[in-house]
Amino acid sequence: MPAAERIWTAALVVIGDEILSGRTQDKNVAQIALWLNIQGIRLAEVRVVADDQDAIVEAVNMLRARNDYLFTTGGIGPTHDDITVDAIAAALGVGVEIHAKARAMLEAYYATRGGINEARLRMARVPEGATLIENRMSGAPGIRHGNIFIMAGVPHITAGMLHALDGQLEGGRPVVSRTVGCWTAESEVADLLRETEAAHEGCQIGSYPFFRDGRVGANFVIRSTDNAAAAACTDDLIERLGAMGREGIDGGV
Amino acid sequence: MPAAERIWTAALVVIGDEILSGRTQDKNVAQIALWLNIQGIRLAEVRVVADDQDAIVEAVNMLRARNDYLFTTGGIGPTHDDITVDAIAAALGVGVEIHAKARAMLEAYYATRGGINEARLRMARVPEGATLIENRMSGAPGIRHGNIFIMAGVPHITAGMLHALDGQLEGGRPVVSRTVGCWTAESEVADLLRETEAAHEGCQIGSYPFFRDGRVGANFVIRSTDNAAAAACTDDLIERLGAMGREGIDGGV
Repeated sequence: MPAAERIWTAALVVIGDEILSGRTQDKNVAQIALWLNIQGIRLAEVRVVADDQDAIVEAVNMLRARNDYLFTTGGIGPTHDDITVDAIAAALGVGVEIHAKARAMLEAYYATRGGINEARLRMARVPEGATLIENRMSGAPGIRHGNIFIMAGVPHITAGMLHALDGQLEGGRPVVSRTVGCWTAESEVADLLRETEAAHEGCQIGSYPFFRDGRVGANFVIRSTDNAAAAACTDDLIERLGAMGREGIDGGV
Repeated sequence: MPAAERIWTAALVVIGDEILSGRTQDKNVAQIALWLNIQGIRLAEVRVVADDQDAIVEAVNMLRARNDYLFTTGGIGPTHDDITVDAIAAALGVGVEIHAKARAMLEAYYATRGGINEARLRMARVPEGATLIENRMSGAPGIRHGNIFIMAGVPHITAGMLHALDGQLEGGRPVVSRTVGCWTAESEVADLLRETEAAHEGCQIGSYPFFRDGRVGANFVIRSTDNAAAAACTDDLIERLGAMGREGIDGGV
């Protein structure tokens, strides 16, 4: 692996009182993380913030500066608690404008659904200078402004927006991961794991214990942007684990 | 509601590459949020950070200073990727010590499970001056240091630790929430929602659209620390929604 390989990173700001209250189980962190991996971009950090302009501005300005890309989810609907566009415009120090194409899309979408109204028109508002991200699921588009990608909160709508962005973002080599399961307590093999990781540059090994069928086990996950290095590390780890039971445990090796 | 009512807040730092890679779906944000609500404490912000000391230190020091309580999940196991205790000690500017009681608990737990070893002893390490949080599920305890609560990553172990903390943390009045469902597009009632919220001090109304049985609907969630105010706001909202269809839609009003 060349020493100077560029690592591309993204951050995610999840916007919504419903996540912080525990009412709604977030699904966007995992789906955006998995999508980013495929683009060769690493999700470096996530923040969940309330529907509060100051909180959104602080998170957006910190994270857009230190990552290649910043995604947000939530708060782009038609109601009074949807303040993401205004907050991001404030973070950028720009105004808010009606995007003509977004307005036309919403007018077309709502033509057979009761017609456009003031609330629905709110979903055509964007920070000045933004472009749109296609929404194949419902009327209101996502929004791109520089390195900021403003996505829906509803997971299947965000999934469609991600699909529209497939292959559009520059990234590096995707992180590959391999999983080795073993019927052992992780505390039995801690030294072995550390030594294996140290012997394979560019690889990280994570250890995730579980309890299944009355037995203690652990999954060891090898991650690298270098597929050959990950494979060598995996083979080495399996060899070092040696006689420890691995029957019926592996999904994906 | 007295104007000076104290709002108690907590923040959560979720520590783990496995969340940021999308491999593991986080369950701790929602369960800790719900538990905090019952204690009368509001989850104000969440960060998900990598297994990286600088990232943990930054998040911990920012969030412990501006919240009454700080929780962390993850990174307290026996392996090389478990760096939470060291990172929090660094954030606090204290050393790391073996906690005698934690050591005794681990020795007892592992007496019938292969005995204590160096890796398992790592789970008795705490930032200097810490106390323990009971773990009824497995051997390694959680850790409390000042307003910081260091919890497990595995959700059912964290659940047990939360149970051990029931009623131990000072809080205010719990937030009550009521949900009103309606067969309407939220964009049809945006003005009505804003006006209803404005008419009921101390209440927030969140709007969460859904698509079910081929029909568009929305749940409107009224939140307040004042139960009577939430009830009045809910009644008012139902009256304003008036003839809009609500049949077969409500769970919890």
